[in-house]
Parts: sequence; structure tokens; C-alpha cells
Amino acid sequence: MTLRIAVAGASGYAGGEVLRLLLNHPGVLDGSIEIGALTAGGSAGTTLAAHHPNLLPLADRVLGETSPETLAGHDVVFLGLPHGHSATLAEQLPPSTLIIDCGADFRLNDSTAWEKFYGSPHAGTWPYGMPELPGARDKLRSATRIAVPGCYPTGTSLALAPAVAAGIIEPRITIVAVTGASGAGRSLRTDLLGAEVMGSARAYGVGGVHRHTPEITQNLQALTKQPVSVSFTPILAPMARGILATCVAPTTATAAEARDIYLAAYADEPFVHVLPEGQLPQTSAVVGSNAVHLSVHVDASAGTLVVVSAIDNLTKGTAGGAIQSMNIALGLPETAGLSTVGLAP
Amino acid sequence: MTLRIAVAGASGYAGGEVLRLLLNHPGVLDGSIEIGALTAGGSAGTTLAAHHPNLLPLADRVLGETSPETLAGHDVVFLGLPHGHSATLAEQLPPSTLIIDCGADFRLNDSTAWEKFYGSPHAGTWPYGMPELPGARDKLRSATRIAVPGCYPTGTSLALAPAVAAGIIEPRITIVAVTGASGAGRSLRTDLLGAEVMGSARAYGVGGVHRHTPEITQNLQALTKQPVSVSFTPILAPMARGILATCVAPTTATAAEARDIYLAAYADEPFVHVLPEGQLPQTSAVVGSNAVHLSVHVDASAGTLVVVSAIDNLTKGTAGGAIQSMNIALGLPETAGLSTVGLAP
Amino acid sequence: MTLRIAVAGASGYAGGEVLRLLLNHPGVLDGSIEIGALTAGGSAGTTLAAHHPNLLPLADRVLGETSPETLAGHDVVFLGLPHGHSATLAEQLPPSTLIIDCGADFRLNDSTAWEKFYGSPHAGTWPYGMPELPGARDKLRSATRIAVPGCYPTGTSLALAPAVAAGIIEPRITIVAVTGASGAGRSLRTDLLGAEVMGSARAYGVGGVHRHTPEITQNLQALTKQPVSVSFTPILAPMARGILATCVAPTTATAAEARDIYLAAYADEPFVHVLPEGQLPQTSAVVGSNAVHLSVHVDASAGTLVVVSAIDNLTKGTAGGAIQSMNIALGLPETAGLSTVGLAP
Amino acid sequence: MTLRIAVAGASGYAGGEVLRLLLNHPGVLDGSIEIGALTAGGSAGTTLAAHHPNLLPLADRVLGETSPETLAGHDVVFLGLPHGHSATLAEQLPPSTLIIDCGADFRLNDSTAWEKFYGSPHAGTWPYGMPELPGARDKLRSATRIAVPGCYPTGTSLALAPAVAAGIIEPRITIVAVTGASGAGRSLRTDLLGAEVMGSARAYGVGGVHRHTPEITQNLQALTKQPVSVSFTPILAPMARGILATCVAPTTATAAEARDIYLAAYADEPFVHVLPEGQLPQTSAVVGSNAVHLSVHVDASAGTLVVVSAIDNLTKGTAGGAIQSMNIALGLPETAGLSTVGLAP
Repeated sequence: MTLRIAVAGASGYAGGEVLRLLLNHPGVLDGSIEIGALTAGGSAGTTLAAHHPNLLPLADRVLGETSPETLAGHDVVFLGLPHGHSATLAEQLPPSTLIIDCGADFRLNDSTAWEKFYGSPHAGTWPYGMPELPGARDKLRSATRIAVPGCYPTGTSLALAPAVAAGIIEPRITIVAVTGASGAGRSLRTDLLGAEVMGSARAYGVGGVHRHTPEITQNLQALTKQPVSVSFTPILAPMARGILATCVAPTTATAAEARDIYLAAYADEPFVHVLPEGQLPQTSAVVGSNAVHLSVHVDASAGTLVVVSAIDNLTKGTAGGAIQSMNIALGLPETAGLSTVGLAP
Repeated sequence: MTLRIAVAGASGYAGGEVLRLLLNHPGVLDGSIEIGALTAGGSAGTTLAAHHPNLLPLADRVLGETSPETLAGHDVVFLGLPHGHSATLAEQLPPSTLIIDCGADFRLNDSTAWEKFYGSPHAGTWPYGMPELPGARDKLRSATRIAVPGCYPTGTSLALAPAVAAGIIEPRITIVAVTGASGAGRSLRTDLLGAEVMGSARAYGVGGVHRHTPEITQNLQALTKQPVSVSFTPILAPMARGILATCVAPTTATAAEARDIYLAAYADEPFVHVLPEGQLPQTSAVVGSNAVHLSVHVDASAGTLVVVSAIDNLTKGTAGGAIQSMNIALGLPETAGLSTVGLAP
Repeated sequence: MTLRIAVAGASGYAGGEVLRLLLNHPGVLDGSIEIGALTAGGSAGTTLAAHHPNLLPLADRVLGETSPETLAGHDVVFLGLPHGHSATLAEQLPPSTLIIDCGADFRLNDSTAWEKFYGSPHAGTWPYGMPELPGARDKLRSATRIAVPGCYPTGTSLALAPAVAAGIIEPRITIVAVTGASGAGRSLRTDLLGAEVMGSARAYGVGGVHRHTPEITQNLQALTKQPVSVSFTPILAPMARGILATCVAPTTATAAEARDIYLAAYADEPFVHVLPEGQLPQTSAVVGSNAVHLSVHVDASAGTLVVVSAIDNLTKGTAGGAIQSMNIALGLPETAGLSTVGLAP
Repeated sequence: MTLRIAVAGASGYAGGEVLRLLLNHPGVLDGSIEIGALTAGGSAGTTLAAHHPNLLPLADRVLGETSPETLAGHDVVFLGLPHGHSATLAEQLPPSTLIIDCGADFRLNDSTAWEKFYGSPHAGTWPYGMPELPGARDKLRSATRIAVPGCYPTGTSLALAPAVAAGIIEPRITIVAVTGASGAGRSLRTDLLGAEVMGSARAYGVGGVHRHTPEITQNLQALTKQPVSVSFTPILAPMARGILATCVAPTTATAAEARDIYLAAYADEPFVHVLPEGQLPQTSAVVGSNAVHLSVHVDASAGTLVVVSAIDNLTKGTAGGAIQSMNIALGLPETAGLSTVGLAP
């Protein structure tokens, strides 16, 4: 029996990346998975080639309107929609359809935090698509609704979870994360123009106001009884893809102790890789892949643990994490269609 | 009377930037300053055009050997040499010559810290070329030896000094600073090749081992009796110039209090600019200029002060700071030849 | 007496660059020139800092509406408006006002060519602001209306004019020119987003349809009686500024003959520089400056002359050329406020 | 039976890209192909992770010395060596070993052209690994020696071959091709440093002196009796990967005629794709893939055919072409392990 997959928001970066990965998925290659409806908002009626000239095998596909009708009759529906659009749509699809939401609508447990950061009523909470967090993988098995984590929460939660869970840091955490411009989506904003972005680094969402802050805190708070505080600063760097996150917190552990905890925590994880000592993460090494590269350091003089992580924001940070969760929910091999080999240089 | 200026290490980035700025200095434009000997190590005998095709008016100048002989007879000598080479050379020049060292040799007071981070005997300490630090400007007047600060210490010390001096933060400080590739100098290293650097962000010198760490600590420790700790992580981003530093420390101050302290501290400084609320630093806005752009934030939820600064690492971070100090030492207007107007886009 | 200068379209890249250069103009520095009204379309009412954070000395200026009223009372008015807007506005300003149009409206002589490429009625022809072309400088003296050349026509006409005028090439010319993203202006288009532009080169306007084609042809046709044909292809490269143009045409001249013609043609030009043999143009060497770097080659095997030129599209290619023309029209030194020193690296 | 593959020069970009593609090859995934010896010159003894941190599955592999001994016992040997090293090594390997040389040694037929451009004795000529050229595919079947084409010859020969073969152009051809920095290999040269490359475009090898010129000419001359001349100019742009080539020649054909010829020529080619009218090639759409994107234009006013092509210089331009040829020589499906889906953004 063939599984049919639809992608809503196929003209955006998240939708395009889901399709890029699906085209290399063994299920699509052997015909057991079929790429069905591709839909969009304002771009409905155009071909996919107009938005993603890299997706040659689907170049001539015409985008439909994003609606319950066009998405009906699919076993899996990926949503790459602006925040706030997923809830209404999801209600109109059958409960048995596996809906995988790349947006934020169903990520947060705390409706107060949701309303504070997103300014709209809270839609609810779905199983969270970060299988590497303690307990998360089980909740994804046979799930029919999945909330894909944000890109920053992916890179930073995986960088910090072992230390928080092991109690080797005081959970007053400082994070500075550098992202490529695709992290902002395909939004028409003057400050995202190439001429503005190239040759320049700039901060944004400084002072605890970035929407990913409560999501990071939620992920880490679940691992400890101590109150977690997160000071998070995102930086836009002149590159298309990638997140490099530097995560710092007070510790009294030694470098060897910290490293051992990370090696143990991720020993069985197919995508999270603690680099050999002396090697440091670089985003080019993970671009296009679902890999997470981590390095673990202790600054004995400052009394801090420093963990640096690199991910591709569109792959492991969005669409790759989404496919990984889909694989788990469908009972497929978790790594199907996902590579640990990045594109470099 | 004409003042003669020599630049040793003219083939490197620091030397080239000193020359770029001198070519626009009013003293050079009106003939009261003359650009004399340009010297190099392995590149002696080549023309300046081979190294700095942007410096058209000096294109045909032939580089001499860096030696006491070629540098003799100049009133001012800029040194843009690898660390460890300045001390020997300086001893062989007359005490009356104004020597401005863009290298690290004379920046640190603490010989233990020097030896730990640089692995060689400590040469001494010269007046420190960051006039915006409390008390520093006076020590530069009539100085004949000046140590130009490191690029990271410039961007970060100016971002933190007012908060430390005012006592509004607990001085356990986390700094993550993003730099352009020129910060590494013109060194032939595989990891600095364009194909490696472009499209990628990576950390280096993580865990308290970067040589600028003790210099930042020294600058801030001078402002408080509390012990200062600095956890510093440098990040290489795909751009040629610029440093964007994010500086975080625990605070109980309000955003308004913090902002007022910064506005007061820098009210009379010609190059340090606290941005209007809502505007955030971006390196493109300061590229090529001697300006420092700062934004000041309090993350009330995390209980932290966050200050973001942008500088051009080669201008304010090296050669611009050097010219600024030269102006002070020579009794010229401090801003002569230095712009607050960056090149953007 | 103080000269007052207004800039209409101050929120765009051309307007911003005019202001960046004016801030370093000796007339502004000594007070004989005053920067008056800054105006915009949709951005009227905002501060200049919101658009050009690099222009610190003018940060608090509020943009007025672009209208005859706000522009009245100025001696010089720069127009950085979308094509088609300059003619109406110019008619409403006094004939004695020096109007310098950075747009295309008054560049072409041939109304048929205008209508074919711009699709609107031809407004007329103004003296052309490329003083290095034969006869052009004289027409700019005491002019009160000046059409600033397009960026591609600047880099390519100066690369080809000596060869065409000397008759050493068969004027069937192929040009491929690589530009930075600021060449497209500050337009909100998906294909100009940083994530699209970085890491990618792409052609546009291929096949003789780019609007600068008739302008290049017009400049060169004026220099020869043979019919000139130009095959022009523009390429967008991942950089903010700069144009590197490769210009190729059949020749029987030797390399030495060709080089001598160029050296003679530009011997007295302050901004056009024929590089020494063996040195090739690179845009970083001219960024921020008004310099034009040229290299002249003969491919004896293919029987072609190849001239490569580098300019900054916003400086010599737009605002620098505009200031240079203003200086001539006002009887100021032609190079006032304009540098031949580029920002590199 | 398992096929064993060795890669000599595994620390370089070509060798790394061969390995990146092999890791995704169905033969490697199903165990019928085994990645054997990885060797290097100066880097022998280090791990692959030190050179290619993106190749996680092979991270711990230690590089051997490049020698006949380490390469013995393999069925296929890829050579990614500096020019001039392949011939000696090849002689010492069994005739039955399939040797695929990513270097230039065996590409040219004409020993005079070889000696002129490479300055060393000509080693000979091997079957040429560009199966899309007329007659080339058959020569690769059962070949045991294959010369992988140069990156520029790949992008440009495929862009021009149909027009030359059909006789619709006068074969006096002008080519300007923009490349990313990986095209220069992993050479330690000052002009390839990130700080030099970023924010800048520059020409190199201008005037018919680039070594790929005779190879392009050879490919096209084989298709016509008219004498072919090629004026080729390479441009370095600030990106890691990709070649965008603009190819221009006189024509009297119409756009429709030209387009039809290209559509027919490449109708059955799995990797060469003539874009729909109105869509233009961009390198980001082919990065990481083996696809060639072409657009075909006629500039009726200039009387020229303009063909623009985009490839990834490391994939289709080197390692992808090498794998494609290997597949043919081994009788595997030609597209095995090679994607037409690029990484964008």
C-alpha cells in the first residue's frame, strides 16, 4: 500500500526542505511513499520550479490552495505555515491523518508563556518532535499529531540537556546563537535583503524577547527541579543556513566529567555527535544533514561549562527533525532519508 | 615642520589599515605629516600594490626590511608585527620616537597571565590605547610608547566598562563575540581559506584559552574591587571585517537605569554611540569607521544585563584605535582622520 | 555664502551613498556646504537612522515628503528616485537649481530606445555625468541638469571607450558583468533575500533585454562611425557592492599597443587607473572609493581584446559619479570628497 | 563480491567530494561497494575528520601514504592529486584497476597544447569522462582508465556542444565563467584567504592563459570542421561552490530554433536540464547535485546566442562526473548515487 504525503506551505523554506529530503527518502525511491498535494497561500497556481528550482523532479508540479479539501486523502500532512494557521487547519483534517506541524502553534505547554510571546490564544500541545530528549521518542511512536521544535531550541536543548539532567551546572544559562538568514523564512523584509545581510553580523530579539526562549526553557526545565533561567541572544550572520550555538552555565565539574556525561547521553543517538577533543563545531560540516555536532568544554578559570553546537537550521532544525519524527510515528527506521553527511566546503 | 611616520609590517592587514586611514588624515592631506618608510619581513622588496591594491596613492612604494635602520629618522613608528617581535625592535629605536604597537607584547600588566597565554617572557607594559577607559586618555598624552588594545578587548571592554564601574552587574561575565576573518590576520592556514570560511560559522579558542581573555579581564578588573570572571567565546563568521560582541552578566538594575549609566558614561566620547532604543548594532554600520555602536538591554526574566557592541576589528579594533591614540599623544585633535560614518551596505 | 544640498530618496541606497560621501566632502566639513532637506516616499516621517545606521552624524534627521515644496530653497538637489519620477519633479524646481538625477530618465538620446527598454514616454536628455568620456567634462561645467550614468554603463564604457575611439577593435562587443546585490536597489523581492543571494551566482536580464544595454551602446557608438553591437549579460554575485566587468571584442592589436592606448587615454584622469601588468582588478580594492581599476589584455590565440574593470556600483557607479559631476558643475575641485582609496579587505 | 574503492588525495576537496558521494551510493549502502584505502601526501597519518568533518561515518579513518602499495588490491582508484602526479602512479597499478583521474594529466589529445599550458611532458590521453558529449559514453563502457574533465570545461562544453554540433553559431566563442573558491583547491595562497575572497569578485587567468582553455576548445573542435576559437575568462566570486558560465557566439538562429536544438540534444540526458523559458540558472539550485542547468537565449539585436549554465564545480564539475563515469565503466546504473536535487537556499 502506498502512503501519500502532502506538504502545505510548499513554497517556503521549510516546505521546500521537507520536499528535498523526501525526494531522497527510501520510501519515495521505492514507491512505497508518494508525494501528493503541494499547496501554498498566495503562490497557489504557480509551479514548484518558480520557488524551488533545486527540486528538479518536482519542477512541474502546480501548487494548490492550502485547504482541508486539497489536503484530504493523504496519510501524512506536513504544515509549513505562518504561526497561527495550523490549529484551524488541523481541526478540519481526520484524527487519523499524521499531521506534522513545522510551525510553533503546538510546541508550548504553558498557555501563559504562549500568549506572552505569541500574542494569541493558545491552541494546545502536541507530542514534541525532538526524540533525543528523555522520554520524547516514546511519545512520538504512533502519534498522529507532532509539533516540530523550533530551530534554536533544537540546537540549544540538545547542547544543554545532558548537563541539566546530570545536575552538573547551575541552570542559569547564557546562550548566544548565530543563525543563517534562512532562519527568518522567506519573508519580504528590508533587513533580510542580501545587500543588508552580507558582510554584516547583527543581533535581534535581544533581552529575552525572542519567541524561542520559552521553548528552550520548557525543554530544560523538564529535566531538573531547580528553576532554570535562560538568557538567549540570537545573531544573524551572513550565511544562508546553519546555527552555531554557544551555551554557557556555571559548573564545578571537570572537563573530563562533563565530556563523559555527554558521550554517555548520546552514545546511541544516530544524529548527535560529540566531536573528538580538539575539534570544534562548524556549520558547514552539518549543512544539508540531520547531524548535530557538539563540543564540550570547561573554562576552569571562569567556572563555566561551555557547550558549542552546530546544526543546519532547515534540516535538523526543521524539516529533518520533522522527517525523523515522521519515521518514528510511522514505524519506519528513524534515520530513513536522513544523512549525517554534511555538504562542505 | 613635517612629521615622518613609518609603518613596520605594512604588508599585513593592520599595517594596511593604518595606511588607509593615514591617507585620509588631515595631516597627510595638508603635508604636515609624511608617510615615510614602509617595511615588511618576507615581503621586503615588493611593492605595496602587491599587498594592498586598494591603496592607490602608495601603489609604487617598495617595502623595505623591518629593521632599526629603515625605521630610524621617523617621528612615529607603527608596528604591525607578529606577537613577540615588537620588544626587541622597540629597544633599538630612540626613546623620543613615538612607537605604537598594534601587537600584544605590551598590553598586559600581569607577567604570569602573559606567560600563561603567550608562552614567552613578558616584555613589559606600555600605556594602553583605549582612551575611553577611565584614566586612560591622560596616560596617552605625551606618551612615546603605546600598546594598541586587541580587537576583542576593544569591543567588549567598552561594552562592559560602564556597568562594571557603576556596580550594576555581578561581574561574572559571559561574552560571545562574532568576528570577521581579517581578525586572524593574513596567515596562511587551511581553515582560513575562503572555501572553508564562507557559508559557515565556527567557534575557536573555546573554554577560556583565547589570548584576549586576560586582557578583557584586566580592563574590567581595574574598575571594581569585586573579582571579575570572564567566560569568553570567539566565533568566526563569514565576513571580512567586524566584531559583534554579546556581553551578559547578572543584574538587578532596570533597563532604564542601565541605559542611563551608559548614556552618561559615553556622553562626551566622539566614537562610542549608544543606539536609540529599538535599534540594534550591526557590523556593516561601522565597517571602515572608528565608531562603536552599543545597545543596552535588561532581560528581567533571566535577571541579566545584555550589552551588544559592534566595531570594525581593523579600524576601531586595531588601526583606528592606534591613530586615535597617536592623535592624543601628538596633541592633535583626537578625531583627526577618523570617521564615525561606516560603509553600508 | 553657504550652499544648500537636498537629497530626495534619502532612504534608498543611492541617496544613502550620496550622504555618506557628502559627510566627508570638504565643503561640508568646512561649513560652506550644508546638508538640507532629506526626503522620501513611503518612509517620510521616519529618521535617517532607521534606514542608514552608518550615517551617525545625520541619525536624528527626519525624512520629509519628496515634493517641490520640501526641495525648494536648495542650490543642489540629488534625486535617487524610481525611474520615471524625476521628470515631473524636475519641472517644478527652478531652472537655476542644480538637479542631479541618479535615475535613468534623462540618460538616453534615442527616444525609441528609451520607449523600448523603459516602456514609457521619453522625458528628454540631460548632460551625461561621465566626465572621462571624450567631450563630456565640458558639457558638465555650469550645467544645471545632470543625468548620472547607470552603474553597468560606468564600468563598461570606461573599459571600452579607448579601444573603440582608437579603432583597435571590431566593435562587436561581448560584456559579462558581475554585480553585488545593492545594484538592484532596496527593492523587496524574494530573489534578493539574503538566503537566496548568498552562496549563489545567477544571471538575469539575459539576451539583450537589460535596460543598461542601450546606454552602453550609446556611449560607445558616439566614439566610432562603425556600427557598434553590444551583447551584455549581467550576473548577480553574493556580495553587497561592486561590479567586475569583462569586456571582449575582436582585435588585431598587440597587447603592448592596446595597453599604451589605455595608458594614454587615462593619463590625466584622477579616478581611472590602468593597473600594472600582472595585476588584475578586484572589487574589494575599489569598494567605497570612486576609483576605476582596469586591466588590458590581448588573447592572441582567440584574436580578442579583453578588458576587465572594477568599480563600486554605489560610489563611482552612482553617488560618487554624481558628486564628481556636481563638483565640476559648481567649479569645485573635481576630486573633492572623493577617494581613490578602497576599503579592503 | 564486494568492490573495493580507494581514494588517493582524500584530504583535498576533490577527494572529499568523491567520498561524500560514495557515502550515499547505493553500492556502499547495500555493502556491494566498500570504501578501502584513503591516502594523502603531507597529511598521511592524520584522521579524515581533521580534513572533512562533514564525513562523519569515516571520521576515524587514518590516511595512508599515497603509494602503489597502499592503493594495491582495490578495484577502483580515484586520484585527486596535483597535476603531474597521476601518470607515474597509474603506471604502477595493474591495468585491470579502474583508475579515475580527477587531475588534468590525461585530458588533452594535443601534446603541444599540453606542454604550452602545463609546462611538462605530455603523459597521454585517457577516455574522457563527459558522457553527454557525442560518442563519449561508449568509450567509457568497460574503460579502465578515465580522465575526469575540468570543472570549467564541464559547465561550458555542455553549454556549447549542441550549438556547435548543429552549426547554428559561428564558433568564435566568448566565455566568462564565475566560480566559487573551492575551484582553486585547498591551496594555501594569500589571495584565497577568506578575508580576501569575501565581498569581492576578481578575474584571474585573463587573456587566454587559463589551463582549461585548450580543453574547452578540444571538446568543441571535435564537433565541427570550422576552426573553433575560445576567448575564456574565469572570475572568482565570493561563494564556496558553483560555476555559472555565460557563453556567447554569433548566430543567425532564432531563439526558438536554438532552444529546440538544446531540448533535443539533452532530451535523454539524466543530468542536463534545459530550464523552462523565463527561468535562469543559479548555482544554489545545483549545489551538491550532479545537475547541469542551462538557459538558451538569442540576442537578436547583437546577433548572438547566449547560453548560461550552472553546475557545482565539485560535484558535476569533478567528483560527480567521476562517479557517473565510474558507474558507466562498471556497468552500474549511470545515475547511482548521484542526485539532481540541489541544496537551496
